[in-house]
Amino acid sequence: QHVPYSPPRFPEEVMLQRSKDFHDLLNQRRSVRFISPEPVPREVINNVIRTAGTAPSGAHTEPWTFVVVSDTEMKHKIRLIVEEEEEVNYRQRMGDKWVNDLAKLRTNWIKEYLDVAPYLVLIFKQTYGVLPNGKKRTHYYNEISVSISCGILLAALQNVGLVTVTSTPLNCGPQLRVLLKRPANEKLLMLLPVGYPATDATVPDLERKPLDDIMVYI
Amino acid sequence: QHVPYSPPRFPEEVMLQRSKDFHDLLNQRRSVRFISPEPVPREVINNVIRTAGTAPSGAHTEPWTFVVVSDTEMKHKIRLIVEEEEEVNYRQRMGDKWVNDLAKLRTNWIKEYLDVAPYLVLIFKQTYGVLPNGKKRTHYYNEISVSISCGILLAALQNVGLVTVTSTPLNCGPQLRVLLKRPANEKLLMLLPVGYPATDATVPDLERKPLDDIMVYI
Ligand SMILES: Cc1cc2nc3c(=O)[nH]c(=O)nc-3n(C[C@H](O)[C@H](O)[C@H](O)COP(=O)(O)O)c2cc1C
Ligand SMILES: Cc1cc2nc3c(=O)[nH]c(=O)nc-3n(C[C@H](O)[C@H](O)[C@H](O)COP(=O)(O)O)c2cc1C
Repeated sequence: QHVPYSPPRFPEEVMLQRSKDFHDLLNQRRSVRFISPEPVPREVINNVIRTAGTAPSGAHTEPWTFVVVSDTEMKHKIRLIVEEEEEVNYRQRMGDKWVNDLAKLRTNWIKEYLDVAPYLVLIFKQTYGVLPNGKKRTHYYNEISVSISCGILLAALQNVGLVTVTSTPLNCGPQLRVLLKRPANEKLLMLLPVGYPATDATVPDLERKPLDDIMVYI
Repeated sequence: QHVPYSPPRFPEEVMLQRSKDFHDLLNQRRSVRFISPEPVPREVINNVIRTAGTAPSGAHTEPWTFVVVSDTEMKHKIRLIVEEEEEVNYRQRMGDKWVNDLAKLRTNWIKEYLDVAPYLVLIFKQTYGVLPNGKKRTHYYNEISVSISCGILLAALQNVGLVTVTSTPLNCGPQLRVLLKRPANEKLLMLLPVGYPATDATVPDLERKPLDDIMVYI
């Protein structure tokens, strides 16, 4: 069944202004790795997740599960798993000299924000669905759909002044899935620590490509 | 080099209100397959693409190219390629299950909007980069990064009252890449017709999952 659709319509000057304001808002977004331990209202997080759930998805499968962790012990268990895997990755990729120099600092695979952030949002993709009769239902393009939903989530966070760093701890997926008791059809896609930025937060001094480098007009 | 980062901070009541308003805005988004031929200011489209370009990306590779097509003949050529492939997809490639899943959306291989919409936005993922010395640079997670950017683009469109339908034109990528003269490292990920909704636009009468079905709180 189809229903009429008529969303709000704005005059051209209003569209132009809204498009500028929204760009200004999102252009301030940065991946922040220093997060404040201050509490964040849970209802705000609920609304941010609701907003992520408005994303389109292949054949309307809505193939996402957002696991929001605020429990201190659970956050610490997640940190241990992620840091252990990151250390293995790190040691495999780098030569002995670098590893020895950096081992005592433990800076590169240490992720303090996993303990400190008031919330960790673990985003799982449902690689298939289970129908009432127990049969599997294919979820076409589930990774793309969940990533689109993550983009909307990032916009929603920025809109309320919260920060995160998008991370894809793929090697940790199976262990974190078991820890968080998620079913076998779910696979971890992203892990986002969420909170206010620490007062002394810094970010790498990066530039973004100008419009001409990302858009072609025909 | 790192620089201090302090984004705007809102009082809790303001955060809560902003999170609600943003949800209300994006919850009105629907995939619209009936698009009005009315022109849309190009500067608004530029700002929407600029906004998509603020997305995070693995190792800051910014692996996206947005090809914006407004040329009538080029749009028609794109339509011919997409419809030809889509007919084969529906008749042969997808299988009965997929076709059944799509039946309630009433989608088929006829895509009038490809001629009618004032803009077609073709989103390419750059599967690798080319360094100044000619060597290839791997783009980790390029598909996830570009999909996140697409999510931000959808939010930016909704924010100005424009509509689209997210589509992943199966098997048309190589032909469209050649038609649009994109280099070999770019692969088509998504095709979005963009415009105002047609005055008589309808959408499938779908529901979204409630918060409890998509969020787990620990
Ligand atoms: C990755 C992806 C691929 C999609 N492919 C198509 C498509 O090829 N054709 C189409 O009509 N809709 C396509 N859609 C739109 C979905 O059918 C739509 O998002 C879903 O039915 C939910 O409806 P809504 O977007 O109005 O909330 C796609 C959506 C996503 C996220
Ligand atoms: C798919 C994806 C994976 C990422 N993985 C990591 C990660 O594992 N660790 C990390 O610190 N940052 C990660 N990032 C963040 C990027 O490094 C960051 O987005 C990029 O440097 C641009 O900076 P900005 O987000 O501040 O604009 C990831 C981003 C994306 C989109």
